[in-house]
Amino acid sequence: MGESLTEFRTETTLPAPGGQRGTEPGRAAGAPERRGPIGTQRDGRPGPAEGHEAVMLLERARAEVDPVLQDALGSLPAPMRRIALYHFGWEQADGTPAEGGSGKAIRPALVLAAAAALGGSEARAAAVRAAAAVELVHNFTLLHDDVMDRDATRRHRPTAWTVFGDPDAILAGDALQALAMRLLAEDPHPAAPAATARLADCVIELCAGQHADTAMERRTPREVTLDEVLAMAEAKTGALLGSACAIGGLYAGAGDADVAALDAFGREAGLAFQLIDDVIGIWGDPRRTGKPVGADLAARKKSLPVVAAFASGTPAAAELAELYARPSEKEDLDHIALTVERAGGRDWAQNQAADRMAVAMQQLARVVPDPEAAGGLLALAEFVTRRSS
Amino acid sequence: MGESLTEFRTETTLPAPGGQRGTEPGRAAGAPERRGPIGTQRDGRPGPAEGHEAVMLLERARAEVDPVLQDALGSLPAPMRRIALYHFGWEQADGTPAEGGSGKAIRPALVLAAAAALGGSEARAAAVRAAAAVELVHNFTLLHDDVMDRDATRRHRPTAWTVFGDPDAILAGDALQALAMRLLAEDPHPAAPAATARLADCVIELCAGQHADTAMERRTPREVTLDEVLAMAEAKTGALLGSACAIGGLYAGAGDADVAALDAFGREAGLAFQLIDDVIGIWGDPRRTGKPVGADLAARKKSLPVVAAFASGTPAAAELAELYARPSEKEDLDHIALTVERAGGRDWAQNQAADRMAVAMQQLARVVPDPEAAGGLLALAEFVTRRSS
Repeated sequence: MGESLTEFRTETTLPAPGGQRGTEPGRAAGAPERRGPIGTQRDGRPGPAEGHEAVMLLERARAEVDPVLQDALGSLPAPMRRIALYHFGWEQADGTPAEGGSGKAIRPALVLAAAAALGGSEARAAAVRAAAAVELVHNFTLLHDDVMDRDATRRHRPTAWTVFGDPDAILAGDALQALAMRLLAEDPHPAAPAATARLADCVIELCAGQHADTAMERRTPREVTLDEVLAMAEAKTGALLGSACAIGGLYAGAGDADVAALDAFGREAGLAFQLIDDVIGIWGDPRRTGKPVGADLAARKKSLPVVAAFASGTPAAAELAELYARPSEKEDLDHIALTVERAGGRDWAQNQAADRMAVAMQQLARVVPDPEAAGGLLALAEFVTRRSS
Repeated sequence: MGESLTEFRTETTLPAPGGQRGTEPGRAAGAPERRGPIGTQRDGRPGPAEGHEAVMLLERARAEVDPVLQDALGSLPAPMRRIALYHFGWEQADGTPAEGGSGKAIRPALVLAAAAALGGSEARAAAVRAAAAVELVHNFTLLHDDVMDRDATRRHRPTAWTVFGDPDAILAGDALQALAMRLLAEDPHPAAPAATARLADCVIELCAGQHADTAMERRTPREVTLDEVLAMAEAKTGALLGSACAIGGLYAGAGDADVAALDAFGREAGLAFQLIDDVIGIWGDPRRTGKPVGADLAARKKSLPVVAAFASGTPAAAELAELYARPSEKEDLDHIALTVERAGGRDWAQNQAADRMAVAMQQLARVVPDPEAAGGLLALAEFVTRRSS
């Protein structure tokens, strides 16, 4: 896995600035990011490629967004609040405080980084509430997806439905969606209505993505096309990352074309993320991923590399079909993983991820041609496609 | 039942206009409602008490809101659209057209009547999109409540989860909530952000109400207090009727005090509605209600009259506790109903409903002192507390 990600990294350097818009010194000067020089990666020196800048951006986003989130959750009626605080990792099931663990704040960090890239520190500060709303929507979908998928563990803890039951997990999810919209609707910022509409539209796309995912579970891998599984991943993962970037742009006063480019950047980076996540799900190091190696294969998941392998028409694909049809007891998961690899599933996923990241970078360069200003978004996009947990 | 509702009706006439605001001739003249004279009820002549005006208002609301709803649903991704159109009664499960049956449009009619009462025909026309958003929220909660309550029938058809499965019914509900918020957020009307925030806040209250309802199911009727069950009914039923009226007021440019009074009017009318609905659920005519008599008792529902009976401390309450503890096979439901009545449950519910309607009327008179302008809201409130299906 290490090699593949290194390889991937070297293929996805930022294109030379060549967008239609010139560098705007005022914007770059206004950007509040105190980050390492983005150029170091292209120079071959250690830098954001190591993820230091991204980690700093995520921690900063967490620190800024958490108080808004906690205020918002604190306004919920007691039973909804209790489930939400448990889900966010801020309370135990019995209501006693817990040590956090509410996720990496990638989406809020993207909102803030996009606002900063286009509008500097003022836009970034104005977008904190919107960043919290995006995080609430993400968590609403996690609550509901866990109910539908019967997933019992989330962020190393029992999922909310296993603790509170399906109805309460559904209701808490509903309440978090509403809370996200209320946060935005109460925001006097002129971008708030457009951001609300965009976030609501994204929720609809997320629902369609989750529907496609659950519908695919009832079909064999042979019946699923690569286009379908890519479209599903875009709706389920890309849409919210794209919306996060677009909403950050709206808070910086960006025009339609720039907002669309930011959306495309986030979407493509999100797809790259999902491709790499699926690679890690098969070949990753369980000490780093928190997942047992081969768990996705054991569950017969139609992850992107697997569907690509099935679609390859190779002898290995035929062998894979046989292996997937067998009962899963005492099977050799390493052998299945090797078969997916021999059918080209691993290479395809890595190449796709690299292609998607290249498109993401092109979109980013169009809207933020100054690499200094684009650095935060770039660092986050590279971080999510190289994450280890 | 007939007598009780007649009795109830005579107790809930509109209080004499005595609000602080004088009649505004311009507003009354601008009101588009072509309705029968509201005063006829107080004169003892047939009029809105018969529900003709309300039926007309509901039909008009349905006719105005349905095209907006159908447009909005048409914008959903295909699988979500299919479930939503089935739920609304506009399509069969296989996607062929169906004959409608999407409910009585009470909530949209309240939005429009409140807008008209305070802002005349212009405000009414401006509020159609908001009325559709309120109806979408109502239907989102129905989709989710049916999943949680395992209700198999809704509007005389199999519920969505029985046809499409739990995940798709949950996702379609999520999408309808988002669609409601998107409709409002895209509305350029200056009241739209406040209406969005209010509707989102209402969703949170509806979730808390449904939580309270499901939590009560796990307790015995003795363990449930009247205050608890009234609070649950207010959150589950009153909140959205109140929000519908408040949102109509916002679209008429009403100030905070008037919006609060409209909310209170809708809430109290909603509670009266729930009380009467529970009375009908025990003593109603199944040919008129569509429910078998005693179904609520057979299901051991903790409806308002039952909880009141348990709380009465009468010998009949003790007898009721024994009856409720027995297995439900071959029981005499008429005898249980009579015991609830002897314990005072029926009288209590009817008196509470009358009290709530009186408060509703007071609130309405405060904000719309002109009975002519208030007529639409009054007719709808009386209609819902006298409904037979």
